[in-house]
Amino acid sequence: MAASIEDVARLAGVSIATVSRALRGLPDVATATRDRVLDAATELHYVASPFAARLASGRTATVGLVVPWVNRWFFAEVIDKVETALRTSGYDLLLYNLGDARGRGRFFEQLPMRKRVDAMLIASLVMDEQEFTALGALPYPVGLLGMRRPGFLSTCIDDVAGARTAVEHLLERGHRRIGLIGGDADDPMRYTPPLSRHDGYRDALAAAGIEADPQLEAVGYFTVEGGAEAAARLLALPHRPSAIFAESDEMAYGALRSIARAGLRVPEDVAVIGFDDHVLAELMDLSTIRQPVAAQALDITTRLLAAVADPDLVDTEAVTMPTELIVRATTGTFRPGG
Amino acid sequence: MAASIEDVARLAGVSIATVSRALRGLPDVATATRDRVLDAATELHYVASPFAARLASGRTATVGLVVPWVNRWFFAEVIDKVETALRTSGYDLLLYNLGDARGRGRFFEQLPMRKRVDAMLIASLVMDEQEFTALGALPYPVGLLGMRRPGFLSTCIDDVAGARTAVEHLLERGHRRIGLIGGDADDPMRYTPPLSRHDGYRDALAAAGIEADPQLEAVGYFTVEGGAEAAARLLALPHRPSAIFAESDEMAYGALRSIARAGLRVPEDVAVIGFDDHVLAELMDLSTIRQPVAAQALDITTRLLAAVADPDLVDTEAVTMPTELIVRATTGTFRPGG
Repeated sequence: MAASIEDVARLAGVSIATVSRALRGLPDVATATRDRVLDAATELHYVASPFAARLASGRTATVGLVVPWVNRWFFAEVIDKVETALRTSGYDLLLYNLGDARGRGRFFEQLPMRKRVDAMLIASLVMDEQEFTALGALPYPVGLLGMRRPGFLSTCIDDVAGARTAVEHLLERGHRRIGLIGGDADDPMRYTPPLSRHDGYRDALAAAGIEADPQLEAVGYFTVEGGAEAAARLLALPHRPSAIFAESDEMAYGALRSIARAGLRVPEDVAVIGFDDHVLAELMDLSTIRQPVAAQALDITTRLLAAVADPDLVDTEAVTMPTELIVRATTGTFRPGG
Repeated sequence: MAASIEDVARLAGVSIATVSRALRGLPDVATATRDRVLDAATELHYVASPFAARLASGRTATVGLVVPWVNRWFFAEVIDKVETALRTSGYDLLLYNLGDARGRGRFFEQLPMRKRVDAMLIASLVMDEQEFTALGALPYPVGLLGMRRPGFLSTCIDDVAGARTAVEHLLERGHRRIGLIGGDADDPMRYTPPLSRHDGYRDALAAAGIEADPQLEAVGYFTVEGGAEAAARLLALPHRPSAIFAESDEMAYGALRSIARAGLRVPEDVAVIGFDDHVLAELMDLSTIRQPVAAQALDITTRLLAAVADPDLVDTEAVTMPTELIVRATTGTFRPGG
C-alpha cells in the first residue's frame, strides 16, 4: 500500500504542511527538518508525491546555471557550490555552458523557450542591452553571480578594487614596470573579470603617476598555458617588467613556469601576484587576491530560491563581497632599487 | 508570420528530413550541417519547433550526468567534455552531484521518478547489485564512465594497470619502500579509482616480492590538502618511504608540499608519482600516469546518444582506453643504493 503524506509527517514528527513545504523544496524549512522529512519519505517509498506536487504547482524543481566555461577553477567551484545549495533545497541543476559565441547566440535566442526551470542563474557574463532585456522578460527569477545590474538580484566581488589592491601591493614593493596578464577584451564570450580587472590595473598605475604601456599588457586567456605564453612574451621585451599581475591564479602558474624556464628568479627578477586564491596557490607560494567563491554562490542561490518561493518578494539587492590580499613568497620582500 | 520547417530547409540548403533530424538532436547529422540548420532556424526565429518535436517524440533533449564530486579535476573535465558533446548534438545536461551518502541514497531511491532525461551517464561510482538493478530497469539508455559492468555501455581506463605501471616505474628506479596515498576504502561514496589503484599498487609490490606494509598506505581523500596530510604521516614514520605513489595528481601536489616543508628533497629523499596528468602536472614537473579524459567522455557520450537515437541498437560494448607513463623530475634518475 502506498504511503500517504500523513504517514511521512508522522514518521518525521512534523506537520503535514511542513512535509509539503519540505518536499516542494521551499527554502523556509530548516535543513535538519528537511532531511528528516526526506528520509521519512524515502523510507516509506513516498517518492511520487514531491514530483506530483511540483507538477501541480507548475514548478520543475530545477534551476538553470549559465557559465562561460566549466573546467576553469572559478566556474568549477561555482558549479559545485550552487549545486550543493540547490540539492539541499531539493532542486536539480540544469547546466548551460555557452562554449563559444555561436552557443551564446543560440542560448539567448532560445531563452524564451526555456520553460523547464524555476529560476536562472548567470555567472560572470558581460551582457548587452538585448541580452538583459531577454533575461528581464523571463517569467521566473534571474540571478547574477560575478556581476551586477540594476533591477537584477546579484552577488559579486569588486573586481576593479581587487585588481587595484594587487597592483598597489606591487607598487608598494617598489615596482614601477608592472606587466599584466589578462583576458582577451575582444573575446566574443565577454565574461566580466578581464574588463574589470584591467580597469583596476590601469587605475592603480594612474594613481601612482605611471603611464600605462600597452606593450606590458598580454592576453593569457585565463588558462595555465595561455599565462605561460603571455609571460614569455613579456619576458622577451627589451625592457622587461620587474613584476607581473595575472588576473587569475591559473595564468599566474603559467607565468611562474615561463619565468623559471627563462632562468629567472621569483621574486628577485620578476615578482608575481595572481587573483582567486586557487586551491594550489598556497602550495605554489603565490601571492594573490582571495575571493570568497563559496560564499558568493551560497548567497545568490539562497536569495534566488527565496524569490522562487515567493514571487512577490522583489529582492534586487546587489551584494558585493570583500576580497583580501594574501602575501606569499612570489612577491617576497624584494624592492628593486631599494 | 512564423517560419515553417520548409523555410528552414530552404535557407539551410538541406532536406526537410535533415532539418527534422538536426533539430531533434539525432547524432547522425554532420556537425557542419547541424550548425547550418540551427543557424537557419535561429535566423528565422524557428525556435518553437525543436522543442515541440521533442515533446511529440516524448524526448526531453536532456541527458543526466551523475558524479560523486564536481570540483575535483577529473570530474570537472568530465562535466566539461560531456557537456560540450551534448551541446553539439542539441542536448542539455542535468547534473546530479551525489555529494554524500545521504544524497546517494536518495538519488537511487528516486531514480524511477527521474523521467526528465533521455539517457543517464554515471561517472566512477562503485555500485552494489541493488543500484545496478535500479539502473538496468530504467526506460532509457544508461552509460558508465570510468567503470565497467556486463550489460552496460561503458568507457574507462584500466585503473589497476595504470597504478601497476606507476609502482613498477618506482621499482625500476630502485625503490623498495614505496608509500601509497589513496582514497578511503570505507568512503560511503564508493567511487572506483581508490579501489582499483590500490589493487594495482599491491599487485606491483607482490610481483616484485615485496610484502605490503599497511603502515605505508595513507588516506588522502583525493584532495590537495588530504594528500599533504597523508604524506606528512608517511614522512613521520620511523622508517619512511623513499618513494610515494599518489592515486591522483592533486594528492601528489599536497605530498610535494609536505616533503618540501619537512626539508626533504624530491626526488633525492622522496620520489613522487601521481595519476591523471592534471593540467598543472607539467608545471610541477610531476611524473604521472596520463589518462585520456576528453576521449573517454566523448566516446561514451557519442555512443550513449546513438543509443537514444536508435533504442533497438544494443551496444553494451566496454571500451577501455590506454594510460601512459609520463616521467618527469619528481621521479628523477636517482637510485637508492644504486
